[in-house]
Formats: sequence, C-alpha cells, structure tokens
Amino acid sequence: MGVIVPLQDGKTEPRASIEPLVRLASGDMARVNELILDRAGSDVGMIPEVARHLIDSGGKRLRPMLTIAAAGMCGYTGSGHIKLAASVEFMHTATLLHDDVVDESDMRRGKAAARLVWGNQASVLVGDFLLGQAFKMMVEVGSLGALDILSNAAAVIAEGEVMQLAAAKNTATTEDEYLAVISAKTAALFSAAAEVGPTIAERDRAERAAFRSYGTNLGLAFQLVDDALDYGGSAAELGKQVGDDFREGKITLPVVLSYRRGSDEDRAFWKKVIVDSAIEDGDLEKAVVLMRRHNAIDDTIERARHYGGVARDALAPFPDSDYRAALLEAVDFCINRAH
Amino acid sequence: MGVIVPLQDGKTEPRASIEPLVRLASGDMARVNELILDRAGSDVGMIPEVARHLIDSGGKRLRPMLTIAAAGMCGYTGSGHIKLAASVEFMHTATLLHDDVVDESDMRRGKAAARLVWGNQASVLVGDFLLGQAFKMMVEVGSLGALDILSNAAAVIAEGEVMQLAAAKNTATTEDEYLAVISAKTAALFSAAAEVGPTIAERDRAERAAFRSYGTNLGLAFQLVDDALDYGGSAAELGKQVGDDFREGKITLPVVLSYRRGSDEDRAFWKKVIVDSAIEDGDLEKAVVLMRRHNAIDDTIERARHYGGVARDALAPFPDSDYRAALLEAVDFCINRAH
Repeated sequence: MGVIVPLQDGKTEPRASIEPLVRLASGDMARVNELILDRAGSDVGMIPEVARHLIDSGGKRLRPMLTIAAAGMCGYTGSGHIKLAASVEFMHTATLLHDDVVDESDMRRGKAAARLVWGNQASVLVGDFLLGQAFKMMVEVGSLGALDILSNAAAVIAEGEVMQLAAAKNTATTEDEYLAVISAKTAALFSAAAEVGPTIAERDRAERAAFRSYGTNLGLAFQLVDDALDYGGSAAELGKQVGDDFREGKITLPVVLSYRRGSDEDRAFWKKVIVDSAIEDGDLEKAVVLMRRHNAIDDTIERARHYGGVARDALAPFPDSDYRAALLEAVDFCINRAH
Repeated sequence: MGVIVPLQDGKTEPRASIEPLVRLASGDMARVNELILDRAGSDVGMIPEVARHLIDSGGKRLRPMLTIAAAGMCGYTGSGHIKLAASVEFMHTATLLHDDVVDESDMRRGKAAARLVWGNQASVLVGDFLLGQAFKMMVEVGSLGALDILSNAAAVIAEGEVMQLAAAKNTATTEDEYLAVISAKTAALFSAAAEVGPTIAERDRAERAAFRSYGTNLGLAFQLVDDALDYGGSAAELGKQVGDDFREGKITLPVVLSYRRGSDEDRAFWKKVIVDSAIEDGDLEKAVVLMRRHNAIDDTIERARHYGGVARDALAPFPDSDYRAALLEAVDFCINRAH
C-alpha cells in the first residue's frame, strides 16, 4: 500500500483539477449518460421534456462519477455500477426539481426553473417519476447492500429538506444546525454514491466505511464552497454568478457566521433581507461587505478545507492508483473553486 | 449586543487561561462541591469511600462550571443550577467508574483506579448509585426541559460507550466513526451541561441552541486535545504523563490518522501494538515518531482548533459580559493545553 504525505497545514494543491476523474470515468460515464436518457423516457410526453430540461442543462455529474470511480478503484468488474450511478443522478435531479418548487426558485443552472415552464405540479410529479426510476434501476442491480445505502440516503435527503424548511428564515441558526441540514441534504447523497462502489465490489466493512466517510466529507466541503461562491468566494470582486442564495433569503454558512459575529445593526440588516425579504438595490454588496468584515466567507472556505482534509484521510489507506489520485485531487478541486 | 472580531485564521490566544471561568464560578462551585460531598454520602460505607476516591482526586470540574457559567450568563437567579451542576459532575464520575471497568484501566487521575482498590463490582454499582443520585437531584430541580436534556445525554453517553466497545482495536476506524464515538462519549455531556443553563433561565430556542452548540464543540475540541496530549501534544519531547491511551490500546485520532496515512510497515506496527497488545520497550517512542512523520498529532490539534472556532461562533451573538469572555477564553485554554 502507498504512503501519502499530507500537505502541510491542510493546504490544498492550487492547480488541482477534476479532469483526471472525468478522464478515468469517461468510458463508463458514456454508458451512464445513455442510460439516463433512456430511463428518462416515457410515453407521457411531458416527462422526458421536463427531465431533459434539467438533464441537458449540463451539471458536472460529479455524484455518478463518484460511484463509477469508487467501483473502479475497488476492482469491480461487473456492470451494476452503471445503473447505480444513473440512480444516483436521478435521485439528485429529483431533488433539484422538488427543491425549486419548495424554494419557489426561478432559475436553475442558468436556465428558467422547470416549475416556471411546466408548473409546480409537473415538477413534483416528474421528480417522483425519476425517484421511481432510480429505485427500479437499483433493484435491477440486485445488490441488497447498495439498495440499503441508497434507500436510506433517499430518506435522509427528504428529512434534510424538511429540516431546511423548518430552519428557513431563522437567522439565529447555529453552525451545527446548518451542518445537520447540509449533511442530510447534500452530503448523504455524495456519501451513498461513493459507498455503493466498494459495496457492489464486495469489499470489507473498513473499505466501505472509508468511502462513506470520503463521500460525506467531500459533500460537506462541496456545499460549503458553493455557499461561499454564491457570495463571490474569496475573490476581491463580485462576479456575475453570485447572489442567488441571497435573493432567495437562504440561510447558508456565510450568513450564519456574519449574523452571529455581527453588531446589532448588522443583525437588523440580516433580518430585513432574510426574514422580511426586503431587499433593496445595493443590499447584496452590503451583505458581502459585512461578510468580509467578519471573515465569514474565508472562514466558510476554511471550514470546507477541514472537511476536505477528513475526506483525504478517509482514502489514505488505499494503495496508490490513478483512481485514488483522481479522487484526492477532486477534493482539492472542489475547495479551490473558491479562489 | 457586542461585536466580536474573530482572531485571524482561527488562531487562538496563546495566553488563554481557565482562571476567569474558575473565578466567576467560584461562589456557586463552593455550593456545588458541598452538595457533591453531601449526595455522595450513604450509610453503606463503601459508597462514599469509592465515590470520594474519585471526587477528591481533583478533576477541574469543567463540566459543572459550564452549567454554572451558562446559567449566570443567562441571568438565572434561582438555585436550581447548583443541583444541575452537581448532577452533571455525578454523571461524569459515574462514567469514569464504569469506563475503568470496561477498559480494565489501572490508573485514573494519577491514582489507582477504584476497580483495583474495591473491585469491578463495587465500581459498577457505585457508578449506578451516582447516576441515581444525579437523576434525583435533576428531578428535585423540577425543570422538565433540563430533565429532558440530561436524561437524553445519559442515554447518548451509554450508546457512545457501547459504540467505542464495538470499535475497540479496530485500527481501520475512520475519523468520522471516531468522531461519532467522542460526540456521544464526551461532547454530549459538555453539550447538556451548557444547555441546561439557558433552559432553567427560560431563554429562547436560539439561545439554548447556541449553548448546546458551544458545549458540543468545546467537548470535541477538549477530547481531541486530550488525545494529542496523551502522545505529548505538539511538544518536542515526551513528558511524563503520556502513553496511557497507547498502553491501553485505545483508538484515538492520532492513531487513526497515523494508521491511515502510514505505510504497510507502519500499519503492521499499529496492529501489533493495538490489536495484539504486544507492546515492547521503545514502542511508545516509535509510535510518536510515526505520528510526527505523518503530522498526526499536529493535525489532531488542528481539528480541535476547527471545533473550537465553531464553539466560539456559537456564543458570538450574545452581549459582551464577563461570563461570555470567560467561556470564550476557556475554548482557547482547552486547545492551547496542547502546546
């Protein structure tokens, strides 16, 4: 088995890229994408239309790639990982469709949200259809272990959404409460996506636990960096793709930290924009100024770096391989998006 | 409300002391200590003997101090916090008695473990007696909220002990699995000790959540630093009070990280000393060399620093006060013990 020397002080490799992972998974991912298009089909015309609206809008497919890479790294030689990866992506797509309805979002991946085009009912039902297709594919694979992991994740994700709904607009949310939400809402699917790899490869308990931990902590780091990016990350200027969370009044870690560390006046501002949704011109810029003053964006990235470190250590005991290197680099890539 | 400016990069104040907390709590703690001596009494002579063996051996009483300080900071004016603080200390003492039996420990706080002097049976039963006294005192206070928090913590702690037993000698334990153990075993009581303060002071949900989060994260940081100190902390040389965890074959984070980051040869060493308990002269020194090589001790302290940061942010929204300052300084004190 290989020795990895940890980077000093948890620092990440600045030029880390997702490309090695994409390259390694590309053959299998072509099959996953084909399966996704096939299983999103239906004689009920609206279903493929709505499903493709999201499927074609070009997410990175990071979650199914985790399944592919984990299975590959564990020496899996069957074809069950293709269906499991497609299931993971369908679970993710279903969540996005339902989320947009719950959050009353207008945009998703730079396009109009499906609910705006086809309505809330269609978004809810097509989400349910995709969840149903996901379960069908899992069952076809026939691994009870993988079924257990993915069905459990589906329940946890739903719990996380309800938790988030209950915590919505609560500016006094603690960091721990916020972490509980994203552990369920985001990290649970990353975790399941990774863990099904060693599970179908029939690896032992310790290896399954290692991939579970890798996925969980990568998911936490990924979500925290997303939160930071929505306020421009650690960059000096606000880019174009920022402010969605702010406009939707979402509680994310940069808001949690700014609110907690702020003055009475700051907190009045956060209540105005989040609780009362009374956002005026210049409020996003003001929010970012407050966040910078209290180090909230950088500390969000710092917290992500902590989880990234845990994810790297989870995979540390495995022998050196292209897969392992690509999965480790993916951690740094996720974190360094923030800069 | 006050503004706190976070220390850059999560750095902690190097000269942080526990003294401000001790000083603020001293009046109430005198009453807590009196109550502890009183309630550890029994006509069954062995009970006070065994109980006092531990009670007199001079722990810092950090946990009951948290209850006293949290109640004080929340403006509580009754006297229920005295009994709740004594309950917390009894729960802790009971855990120590039971732990020593389970771990077959010979030493505790520099003295012979109670089980060596009076036997395992007496240690188990006196632990149960103290737990019973703890519950009696809680009920006397009459706060259903505090009862709920502390009885829940008692169950979680017991779960944590069982979890630890199940994970014992498993060198492949992941960091997440280890965190789950110490969250239950250590952090749950810190969390409950802090949360009962605002609860009996009838403060709102957000303030209770803040103290719960403060306690949880302080507990995690405290335990991780303890783990690091058992291998000498970040000091260059091994002091005298080190190696207990090693000799008992305990899995702690420095071992988890060294095992995961190590070579095949390293892992064979860890299996020999932990799984086979085949510890030879010089093995502790060798363990520390391996830990240093893989940065495992420093990274354990770094992880503790992360949780310390979360604990500080939990109390950030409260107005400036001596209590808040003392509780924040206690976080830095706990972490800086490692240097």
